[in-house]
Amino acid sequence: MEEKRDVILTEVALRDGSHAIRHQFTVEQVTQVAKGLDEANVPYIEVSHGDGLGGSSLQYGFSRTNEMELIEAAAATVKQAKISVLLIPGIGTKQELKHAAQLGAKMVRVATHVTEADVAPQHIALAKDLGLETVGFLMMSHMAPTEKLVEQAKLMESYGADSVYVVDSAGTLLPHEVKERIRALRQSLSIDIGFHAHNNLSLAVANSITAIEEGARRIDGSIRCLGAGAGNTQTEVLVAVLDRLGIQTGVDLYKMMDVAEEIVAPILEKPQEITKDGLVLGYAGVYSSFLLHAQAAARKFGIDSRDILVELGKMKVVGGQEDMILDVAAELAKKLQTAGL
Amino acid sequence: MEEKRDVILTEVALRDGSHAIRHQFTVEQVTQVAKGLDEANVPYIEVSHGDGLGGSSLQYGFSRTNEMELIEAAAATVKQAKISVLLIPGIGTKQELKHAAQLGAKMVRVATHVTEADVAPQHIALAKDLGLETVGFLMMSHMAPTEKLVEQAKLMESYGADSVYVVDSAGTLLPHEVKERIRALRQSLSIDIGFHAHNNLSLAVANSITAIEEGARRIDGSIRCLGAGAGNTQTEVLVAVLDRLGIQTGVDLYKMMDVAEEIVAPILEKPQEITKDGLVLGYAGVYSSFLLHAQAAARKFGIDSRDILVELGKMKVVGGQEDMILDVAAELAKKLQTAGL
Repeated sequence: MEEKRDVILTEVALRDGSHAIRHQFTVEQVTQVAKGLDEANVPYIEVSHGDGLGGSSLQYGFSRTNEMELIEAAAATVKQAKISVLLIPGIGTKQELKHAAQLGAKMVRVATHVTEADVAPQHIALAKDLGLETVGFLMMSHMAPTEKLVEQAKLMESYGADSVYVVDSAGTLLPHEVKERIRALRQSLSIDIGFHAHNNLSLAVANSITAIEEGARRIDGSIRCLGAGAGNTQTEVLVAVLDRLGIQTGVDLYKMMDVAEEIVAPILEKPQEITKDGLVLGYAGVYSSFLLHAQAAARKFGIDSRDILVELGKMKVVGGQEDMILDVAAELAKKLQTAGL
Repeated sequence: MEEKRDVILTEVALRDGSHAIRHQFTVEQVTQVAKGLDEANVPYIEVSHGDGLGGSSLQYGFSRTNEMELIEAAAATVKQAKISVLLIPGIGTKQELKHAAQLGAKMVRVATHVTEADVAPQHIALAKDLGLETVGFLMMSHMAPTEKLVEQAKLMESYGADSVYVVDSAGTLLPHEVKERIRALRQSLSIDIGFHAHNNLSLAVANSITAIEEGARRIDGSIRCLGAGAGNTQTEVLVAVLDRLGIQTGVDLYKMMDVAEEIVAPILEKPQEITKDGLVLGYAGVYSSFLLHAQAAARKFGIDSRDILVELGKMKVVGGQEDMILDVAAELAKKLQTAGL
């Protein structure tokens, strides 16, 4: 018997949460967590390196365990849940996607920067050929004006995506910004809309509720808040709030609480909280990879790294443009000097 | 020069936050935190035992340092901030309030259960006589229907309170419930309305924004989320979000981030997070003091303690009625048996 689900949750602790433990998941941990989530009737469980298939590298951090082993273990464990993988074209390859599908993955989220959906069509086409449910995952969604976001989401739909996600990668969107974006997508697309939050501004649960109120039907959560930066939307908390609101997720709240406390919490090296760095990233709306660069540039020019990050956020600088950080710092230092500060 | 403040913050880490470190604050810690908050231009800093003046006891936990020493140290440290104290009639006494005022406290929040404002008039009158700014602080505000809350708030106003707070002691209010309550108070009172949140459902920041949108002008925060249970509204996060919304707190965001990271975080025994117990309390909307009783009763009757807590929440059982927990557990066990579960 299928439970009624008003909202369909995807649990990302075994993917985005991988960042929180420096990609050190073991097969045993993934098996235990997947078993618990499956028993709690979570419909989708994502398993991949934090940066998606093929992310294990010097640049993104090496995984302790080959992600294919983790995917295979999770797929072999679950009885009702479907295993999802994340694929960022340019990091992961079509070969890796095929391999994940062979091992039992049933869904793939093809992730691109919010303005670069046009790198996704081949990967989406392959995913459909492989019989996978396919999601267009628009990262750093705050960096595009709403019209641009709609245009890019429609591209994802045109490539064959079954649903498209607004991804608040930097945890920077405010509730009214989520509302505007989801509403516009809901009016322009006929496929399901999803929302993926980060908790840098402590708004992940509230923003997820707002998204649901505006018609998002797919929501990501991470049990015990296990995710990059300040973590994602804490799944068991979201389930509790939605239950109070009369919105059915089909997920067993008590079981999720138990899995969070007994299986996931002991895996964490330290609890997820909103630290200074996490808050700065959410406030400025920039990539976490900018943080160390900005701190180095700040030391060089004798200014505050936060001013650099806020300026980078305003300029909507994207990943790969790290060399601009020194220019921005130099410019800021000059302005401050001129202003006599 | 007075900064423009659209919203007036009261920092409660040195009072509500005292719970998070089992009331072990030292004079040196309080002095350092108060100095940092004062330099960040926080207008009010509350210092007391977690359960208010006179809270140091076998029942509520003994303080490491006499709270009067902590109040005196904080008052001697601040240059612009005003020191606040919490007074729960029945726990704290008028004598203690006089003593706190002599030591430099400039504000008192007279706290009662949401339906028991009528125990406050003498304490409010004394506070006014002492020249203190005086706040009516309606705890467990979710337990009264909105009309009752308005009635009780009007009592606080009639006793002479300068402002009245909706206090979400169990961290259980949902955004639409905050909206309804603050709106009703705004329409019925002429004094300032305040809001004090807890983060059990990860909604403290969002609920505080909702309260401000509905006209609340006074908001409580706890730096680094330091507070009872899942903590309160993380002050530096709230300041960042309000800044993004163009709402002036007059508080220096960068300085608050630094104080959180460098002074407050090292004091914590472990970071604040939303654990199973914290979530259960917020979901059920009950006193934290019920938790151990419910767990004991659950073991006795072989049922889940969460079912007991949810039932107690529905029945709106209040502190002092702990003896009802066994009755509720027995009743639940009987029902489950009858239902063949």
